[in-house]
Amino acid sequence: MARDRRFMALALSLGRRGMGRVWPNPNVGCVIVARARIVGRGRTADGGRPHAETQALAQAGEAARGATAYVTLEPCAHHGRTPPCAEALVAAGVARVVVAAQDPDRRVAGRGIARLRAAGIAVETGLMEAKARRDLAGFLSRIERDRPFVTLKLAASLDGRIATGTGESRWITGPQARARVHMMRARHDAVMVGGGTARADDPMLNVRGLGIDRQPVRVVVSRRLDLPPEGALARSAGDIPLWLCHDRAVDPAPWTARGAVSLPCGLSNGQVDVAQVMAALAERGLTRVFCEGGAGLAASLLAAGLVDELALFTAGCAIGAEGTPALAAMGIDRLAEAPRLRLAHQERIGADLLSLWRRP
Amino acid sequence: MARDRRFMALALSLGRRGMGRVWPNPNVGCVIVARARIVGRGRTADGGRPHAETQALAQAGEAARGATAYVTLEPCAHHGRTPPCAEALVAAGVARVVVAAQDPDRRVAGRGIARLRAAGIAVETGLMEAKARRDLAGFLSRIERDRPFVTLKLAASLDGRIATGTGESRWITGPQARARVHMMRARHDAVMVGGGTARADDPMLNVRGLGIDRQPVRVVVSRRLDLPPEGALARSAGDIPLWLCHDRAVDPAPWTARGAVSLPCGLSNGQVDVAQVMAALAERGLTRVFCEGGAGLAASLLAAGLVDELALFTAGCAIGAEGTPALAAMGIDRLAEAPRLRLAHQERIGADLLSLWRRP
Repeated sequence: MARDRRFMALALSLGRRGMGRVWPNPNVGCVIVARARIVGRGRTADGGRPHAETQALAQAGEAARGATAYVTLEPCAHHGRTPPCAEALVAAGVARVVVAAQDPDRRVAGRGIARLRAAGIAVETGLMEAKARRDLAGFLSRIERDRPFVTLKLAASLDGRIATGTGESRWITGPQARARVHMMRARHDAVMVGGGTARADDPMLNVRGLGIDRQPVRVVVSRRLDLPPEGALARSAGDIPLWLCHDRAVDPAPWTARGAVSLPCGLSNGQVDVAQVMAALAERGLTRVFCEGGAGLAASLLAAGLVDELALFTAGCAIGAEGTPALAAMGIDRLAEAPRLRLAHQERIGADLLSLWRRP
Repeated sequence: MARDRRFMALALSLGRRGMGRVWPNPNVGCVIVARARIVGRGRTADGGRPHAETQALAQAGEAARGATAYVTLEPCAHHGRTPPCAEALVAAGVARVVVAAQDPDRRVAGRGIARLRAAGIAVETGLMEAKARRDLAGFLSRIERDRPFVTLKLAASLDGRIATGTGESRWITGPQARARVHMMRARHDAVMVGGGTARADDPMLNVRGLGIDRQPVRVVVSRRLDLPPEGALARSAGDIPLWLCHDRAVDPAPWTARGAVSLPCGLSNGQVDVAQVMAALAERGLTRVFCEGGAGLAASLLAAGLVDELALFTAGCAIGAEGTPALAAMGIDRLAEAPRLRLAHQERIGADLLSLWRRP
């Protein structure tokens, strides 16, 4: 029904506002409608609690009795750190619940819906499910694949170079593209780079210019932990989370003393194994990771099939073959072996071209 | 006036149909309108003659008397191999002529317009001039810059590679993109590649699948003329024009014997000087050249500032740093030295992304 779709679309847009802010929980949205009027709205709050339904019900108050609730993800049924949302919907006297996506979490998996139905509530599922699964891809990935949803960002010249031969990379893309990157960072739980990029660029890896009060976790993959001890990351380790993925054989004490979190990982072909990195990040609750290179880490992620979305910024300059390639060697001899992504979107951003490519 | 714009837009679209087919002449369009009715249309015919005005006047016949003629380029006034179009418009009794772009050819340069005015014809100039200059860019370039308009096509992976390390390049882009390339070839006077590409791919460099009866000239830039003597180009040299740009010191006799045209050029940094190549092609009448690489020729053209439009096809695959780069070394150390182009258009073509970048 068109009206149902409209309310669910609103619930989804509420849910999307939680992206990057609610991990380890899903970025759910909820709208409560009584007699065609919206009486409550909610999204998973920053940090993951309260849940969307709790907030929407609190806003609706008595108006929830006999109302319809639109929820982007199946309400939880298990007693975690908050009472289950399914119970709250029953207690509030909601007459009908429309659910977009079912919860893949084994502790929920259909039990939320069953609980509602047992209480006599009419439940419909699957409305705008594909869209909901895209919006909730981070949480679903963590539960279903034991790894976060991974976005890889590359900002390259027309010929795929991310720096000149002398290492100059600031700036290949323009200010609008760089502002968009900060918006993208803000919609992810973590921003990730390799150790080479951390050494070469001495980046802060925070979100700037958007007035947000919650910074993504900074993740650096560095086998030897040979990062600048007085660099921007080191100096800010006590203020903004800094997680370091490194060889188990390396002593992280100098970094943990500064406030960084150590995530020792196994190696693969002499590099930190990116699959282990992603498993460790999911284990710690991350649902959406934004990787910004460098060339080695980006190539490893693509070769391992771990890139869910590629955000490629192409600038209108030509650097030539002495420049640093966007992707390091991948050991690909045949085109049939090359990882393939499908074009999802293209857009001009200032003077640059942004194209989004997704796992097929 | 809106009506004038509409008729000029039609004249321009007629003129565009001549792209790639009318060199050394400009791809002019002409529409003749009497009492708000179109009584004649014409474009420069294939091969460059008859001119657009001649054809439109022939179609209009007596109806041209007192009519308005819309011409995308100032009518010629000099007696070349055909009588001047300005005279023909006067003789036909046209009352008003609307011109988009003035002719930069010193033999014409305002004299066509002066001739019309002297005969009492009302002449207006500059309507949709910018668009006309874009459509006529090939001819204007040949006259004003003594070189053709150059389009560079690159078809690369997400990371700017045009082949795997083992040389596999067929196919990085999909069938729709390749079909678009044939359409692009057909709108240029010549298709150009470097000798390395001719050796590696043994291409035919003709237009296929469009049923056209006039093939673009094939231009190969090869310092040593060390092309496969039994390759596709050699075998077809008698059927489709093949022009070879090579070091003056190399004897072209084996190739001219097959029907190829020899264009000896000077060297620059050990390579055939691309500026000399372009001057030689313009001298021979080419107005629009479509270069398809390889990496060395593409880099030379960009570095020399000779690329007017870059058509970049990006395929959704990642090849990695062992792959062949789209552009060879360009000797660029600082980003400020990198040639810059501006994004003019972006479009999905099948599974691939086409972006068009133009000289700023």
